[in-house]
Amino acid sequence: MISVLVIGKGNVGTHLYNAFLNVDEIIANRINSRMLENVPKADVTIIAVSDDAIAEVSAKIKNSFVVHTSGSVAIDDLKNQQRKGVFYMLQTFSKDKNVNFSNVPFCLESENKNDLQLLETLAKHLGNKIYAINSEQRKVLHVAAVFVNNFTNHLYKIGNDICKNHNVPFEILHPLIEETSEKIKELSPEKAQTGPAIRNDKKTIKNHLNLLTKKQQNIYTILTESIQHKID
Amino acid sequence: MISVLVIGKGNVGTHLYNAFLNVDEIIANRINSRMLENVPKADVTIIAVSDDAIAEVSAKIKNSFVVHTSGSVAIDDLKNQQRKGVFYMLQTFSKDKNVNFSNVPFCLESENKNDLQLLETLAKHLGNKIYAINSEQRKVLHVAAVFVNNFTNHLYKIGNDICKNHNVPFEILHPLIEETSEKIKELSPEKAQTGPAIRNDKKTIKNHLNLLTKKQQNIYTILTESIQHKID
Repeated sequence: MISVLVIGKGNVGTHLYNAFLNVDEIIANRINSRMLENVPKADVTIIAVSDDAIAEVSAKIKNSFVVHTSGSVAIDDLKNQQRKGVFYMLQTFSKDKNVNFSNVPFCLESENKNDLQLLETLAKHLGNKIYAINSEQRKVLHVAAVFVNNFTNHLYKIGNDICKNHNVPFEILHPLIEETSEKIKELSPEKAQTGPAIRNDKKTIKNHLNLLTKKQQNIYTILTESIQHKID
Repeated sequence: MISVLVIGKGNVGTHLYNAFLNVDEIIANRINSRMLENVPKADVTIIAVSDDAIAEVSAKIKNSFVVHTSGSVAIDDLKNQQRKGVFYMLQTFSKDKNVNFSNVPFCLESENKNDLQLLETLAKHLGNKIYAINSEQRKVLHVAAVFVNNFTNHLYKIGNDICKNHNVPFEILHPLIEETSEKIKELSPEKAQTGPAIRNDKKTIKNHLNLLTKKQQNIYTILTESIQHKID
């Protein structure tokens, strides 16, 4: 049996706690990050709070092994007195959408091997994509994730805006979005690149720019030039 | 029975011709775009050639109904003498990857209703996502597709580059990429937006910029500002 205490009631804390409740081998408990006096003892205490609060919250926890769940905070930023670790799930969590943990990569870090094994055991009860990732590597993954998730989603928003402005249903683009994301499992993104930029199709690029707002034109131009290796 | 002649041996022409061969109700024929003397007669002649060649190729075709497959060329750019139309598949085709036509939106246009019905019948033999889309709407879809497909793929490439530069396996990001693309079927891209830009998390943004090349920094900054509505 592993006892787990989750601190934090946001998206990550909620999805994680609910998943632990379904595992027979785990005893899960959860508290709010504002009630840190005499927290229940646990083998692993998981702080799922905003990045800025991790140092302060961890400093107050007396439990022996404390981990955070952030992609961009180093293990040393934990300020508890004893053992430290990281339990980072590289996935996007939404409040109203169920999480399929078999599709969540667990990026784990600790100061010693036994703790890493404990985190691995915990992660294996939820999913099967498990990686040992140190704080430097995690920072790299986090910034790469901003490009492939946050920025990609913003491009979807621009696509949606363009369709809305011209009364064309955005859903026509859903299959293309799906295929684009699936393609990179078989082809490298470099090989998968298509479109007017890589072909240097100047006529089409000019026609496209004419349909766009100033802001959309700026983004279109910088990404086209980047695809064409015109900027370093 | 519908007889179809496909002109062009590129990705689109090849996938389309192979799909027609599997349909009992269609007699398909195919020729190279350099052999346009006395082409076989057909109910529908589909020109699947590069955008720049559409006018020239179509001018040489004597068959009665000629359509092209381009997202960015207007129906009037066809230069055949008789009936004109468009059979545009809004999907990305790769040479080495099978196409699942049930996941391909067919955007159809013609000068009269009978021809539109003929194109619809043809499309229904291959798939089930069928839309009547005029040349103006198709141009809009095409530029939106550049954002959600070509530019998104380029963001995947940047994510891949960042991982490679720091010796972290890019595959760890595959599930996130998949989830990001699936999310927009349930949530609007505006509601799905997460990350340091929308939270205005200046500390994380600064840390991220420190990890990037100059070119990556430019793209990071313009997309962050766009998410934050700082630019118009």
